[in-house]
Amino acid sequence: MSDAASPPLTRRNLLTLIGASAGGTAMYQAMTSLGFAAESPYRGPIKLEGDPKGASVVILGAGLAGMTAAFELGRAGYKVRILEYNNRAGGRNWSLRGGDAYTELGGATQHCTFDDGLYLNPGPWRIPYHHYALLDYCRRFGVTLEPFIQLNHNAFLHSSKAFGGRPQRIREIKADFEGAIAELLAKATRQGALDDAVSKDDQAILIEALRAHGGLDKDFRYVASDESAEFRGYAKDPGGGLGAAPVNGEPIGMHDILTSRLWQGLQNFLSYDFQTTMFQPVGGMGRIGEAFARQLPNAIRYGAKVTGIRQDERGVTVAFEDLARDGTIEEARADWCVCALPLTILSQLPVEVSAPMKAAIDAVPYSSSVKFGLQFRRRFWEEDEHIFGGISYTDLPIRHISYPSAGYNSGGKGVLLGGYIWNGPNAYEFTAMSPAERIARALDDGAQIHPQYRSEFETGISVAWHRAPFTLGCAGEWTEETRRDHYDNLCQIDGRIVLAGEHASYIPAWQEGAILSALDAIARLHKRVVAA
Amino acid sequence: MSDAASPPLTRRNLLTLIGASAGGTAMYQAMTSLGFAAESPYRGPIKLEGDPKGASVVILGAGLAGMTAAFELGRAGYKVRILEYNNRAGGRNWSLRGGDAYTELGGATQHCTFDDGLYLNPGPWRIPYHHYALLDYCRRFGVTLEPFIQLNHNAFLHSSKAFGGRPQRIREIKADFEGAIAELLAKATRQGALDDAVSKDDQAILIEALRAHGGLDKDFRYVASDESAEFRGYAKDPGGGLGAAPVNGEPIGMHDILTSRLWQGLQNFLSYDFQTTMFQPVGGMGRIGEAFARQLPNAIRYGAKVTGIRQDERGVTVAFEDLARDGTIEEARADWCVCALPLTILSQLPVEVSAPMKAAIDAVPYSSSVKFGLQFRRRFWEEDEHIFGGISYTDLPIRHISYPSAGYNSGGKGVLLGGYIWNGPNAYEFTAMSPAERIARALDDGAQIHPQYRSEFETGISVAWHRAPFTLGCAGEWTEETRRDHYDNLCQIDGRIVLAGEHASYIPAWQEGAILSALDAIARLHKRVVAA
Repeated sequence: MSDAASPPLTRRNLLTLIGASAGGTAMYQAMTSLGFAAESPYRGPIKLEGDPKGASVVILGAGLAGMTAAFELGRAGYKVRILEYNNRAGGRNWSLRGGDAYTELGGATQHCTFDDGLYLNPGPWRIPYHHYALLDYCRRFGVTLEPFIQLNHNAFLHSSKAFGGRPQRIREIKADFEGAIAELLAKATRQGALDDAVSKDDQAILIEALRAHGGLDKDFRYVASDESAEFRGYAKDPGGGLGAAPVNGEPIGMHDILTSRLWQGLQNFLSYDFQTTMFQPVGGMGRIGEAFARQLPNAIRYGAKVTGIRQDERGVTVAFEDLARDGTIEEARADWCVCALPLTILSQLPVEVSAPMKAAIDAVPYSSSVKFGLQFRRRFWEEDEHIFGGISYTDLPIRHISYPSAGYNSGGKGVLLGGYIWNGPNAYEFTAMSPAERIARALDDGAQIHPQYRSEFETGISVAWHRAPFTLGCAGEWTEETRRDHYDNLCQIDGRIVLAGEHASYIPAWQEGAILSALDAIARLHKRVVAA
Repeated sequence: MSDAASPPLTRRNLLTLIGASAGGTAMYQAMTSLGFAAESPYRGPIKLEGDPKGASVVILGAGLAGMTAAFELGRAGYKVRILEYNNRAGGRNWSLRGGDAYTELGGATQHCTFDDGLYLNPGPWRIPYHHYALLDYCRRFGVTLEPFIQLNHNAFLHSSKAFGGRPQRIREIKADFEGAIAELLAKATRQGALDDAVSKDDQAILIEALRAHGGLDKDFRYVASDESAEFRGYAKDPGGGLGAAPVNGEPIGMHDILTSRLWQGLQNFLSYDFQTTMFQPVGGMGRIGEAFARQLPNAIRYGAKVTGIRQDERGVTVAFEDLARDGTIEEARADWCVCALPLTILSQLPVEVSAPMKAAIDAVPYSSSVKFGLQFRRRFWEEDEHIFGGISYTDLPIRHISYPSAGYNSGGKGVLLGGYIWNGPNAYEFTAMSPAERIARALDDGAQIHPQYRSEFETGISVAWHRAPFTLGCAGEWTEETRRDHYDNLCQIDGRIVLAGEHASYIPAWQEGAILSALDAIARLHKRVVAA
């Protein structure tokens, strides 16, 4: 950490010492502070070396976990077969487009009537840059990516209880909140409040940094000034020719920001999972599932609903209904089984696994989530409000409005993510509604932020994940206690069965978790097969 | 600003009162705080109403200012003609691609040998979302835009004098700096240092906000914890299956961050000009100039070097050399002249304008800038370092390394902006070098951040703007004093001549300034013509 020209130890030697004396965690932490990259759990395409001797694997579920397992086991020489409930691959990796139909639990069928090229991603919709496994499969399978805009400074933070219900630009709340913090800390520092914590030399740099970083004026005040305008923007933007001087705007006071609680929205732009550069596939997240499926011609049996899983010392037998043939029951037999069914489904099936794994399967509830896609005849958010991509956050039940990260500035129609509700009473409330009621409520909420909703709306569709027949929920929801008691039991190879999916990872609800879980599961399975 | 359900005045009435009693600036500020959008100097396509009665306009320079003037005056019924020094349109709006050649002042010619689809934007390279005029012309002329990534949390901040010269991830410096600020202010607040500035109720919310926003643990400390890891990332990322628990990283101490001065780099991500969502045209910034030129078939005379501008009461006569015909001198005569030549050029020409305008023309120096495009045989920044778009900042002379905001995750070759030097001694030092020396130095500097430079470099090109024959500098550089003494004189209609360009705006060095300046100039010119 010093500027020393010749440290007495090389960095790698030092790490070896730390690893030997203080163990893994200390070594990881030392790696970071010595300037090595963070360790990723993904280190490039998996190499399954050794002969599987003709072993067969039945894989349950053609989501990303199941298809990752099938693809890699197939490459390694296994005979693989996937049973999939839906008539498409991808699972929660899914884009709804014009012409699609979707029937939810309870029987309501929605027909998607979006225009060509427009879509809703009911499930995953953004990819962090550090989801290396997913990115690597996108590269290998030719899935073209484009940036997903998480933070758009010109989108809104909205509270129905503050600022008279008027949405505020993220840019202003962010700059004014951070400016006020800088002003308060500069003041406290200059008054000696940090004298016992920070050296005088460092205080001098700190004050300089706060002024630069916070947009403070020469007297360390965060007020209407050229300095604050540089961050928060202007009341009147600079222009060209005569009369073109800018006018600085008046910051929103700290009291108003604090009591509005709009600062809570800012966290969504700070977290590792949402940092730039995020991605989405061109044309919808479903392009990834489609690309995986293209790698598995003839391996996926669609419309196959698993009804039971038995195992013995020599293999696994999976019973399933052929949904296209009036529920005829068939059986699939293989040496091994990678089960990538959601735990919501699996916990309701007869499954022959050990008591600890069964307890784990039953221990994890699934989060509740509802998403809405709303098509408008005009991209008013761009044309009227200059919002290009990004997300507005609100305290209304819809929580999010996300603007498309594609087709910018081109006019024409667009589909907004008109709401994304994650857990809490509103998620259950909306799940209980009919699809038409959901859309009506999404329009009511959204019109409080964008009045143009009323005149520009054309068509909408919603997915309430607890009503999705193939998952019965959105994603596995672990607590510290369930992790401690059940996670390792869930992930063990149990006889001839191993589980995979986002629920069997430390990155629940993310596609990366599904893929990494599958890679870990098959690596262990393969080791056992080769050793046998 | 209150939650009051029925304010006594409507917002518009209130604004009228404020405008009447306190004047324009107060009204603009009130507009912002009342929730109206900031006032943009651009309000949609210009309407030049009234008959120009066959008036003719000669326009000097086919940059964005000149072409905006020509396009809009042409639409309004003027006879327009542009004289352009280069054999292409666009001026500083320019992309260098494989097959292009560029000869700088001094005679050195560089041949660009980039692969197909790769380019360097020697001039403007990014478009803020609030440059509404430019975006509107892009929309009208069918220029497709894609996001330009300014802030990539995984790119680097680098000081040759700190951290042993090892580049630091922006993510960690940003999270750790902001976390330390939050910790210090939470501490000062809890010790009563803000008691005279912030109410007790607000202090309670402030402390809660600092904990959430800064990643502090339950004891308000910024240390290795789940909370800080959520922002700064992990020493070991979470994974899937067994042994997949994440390991939190140790934050960099505030002392190290302060003394490294890497916090200075963070400002580049806060400012209004660089906030999300920024754009670039697909295929290079030059696509905009090309699109403008397509709107002006036959109106542009290329290879025409202006040598003098005379005017009388009835019109303007511009002398120019036809560079293709051994410098033959010709004259162009028109009723009016919109002169969009850079002041560096104009100040060296005989020009018949008033003394105040001449003084203004001579008063504005031009900033110095050098840019490098470096082609590498492999996108190692993505493949090895997971940097997708964005900019690394360094204290080395090259200052910036910018990673392409296109073609992500697709493998193959790529062109980095291998340096962007803006003013200061290094800009002059690099301008004085031969093109080959510049590239060699850019590689030396860059290799300190990316050692792969050495093995992966293929070909490079540089533009030092003070050696660009058509501008002799990068952009007009105003001070508070020159603005006060000269700006309005520069922008007046002087007899039959009016100037336009980024130099005649409050947004110097940006394309938006050029366009807004042209629109303002021709609006005033047209008013005069119609009134005559």
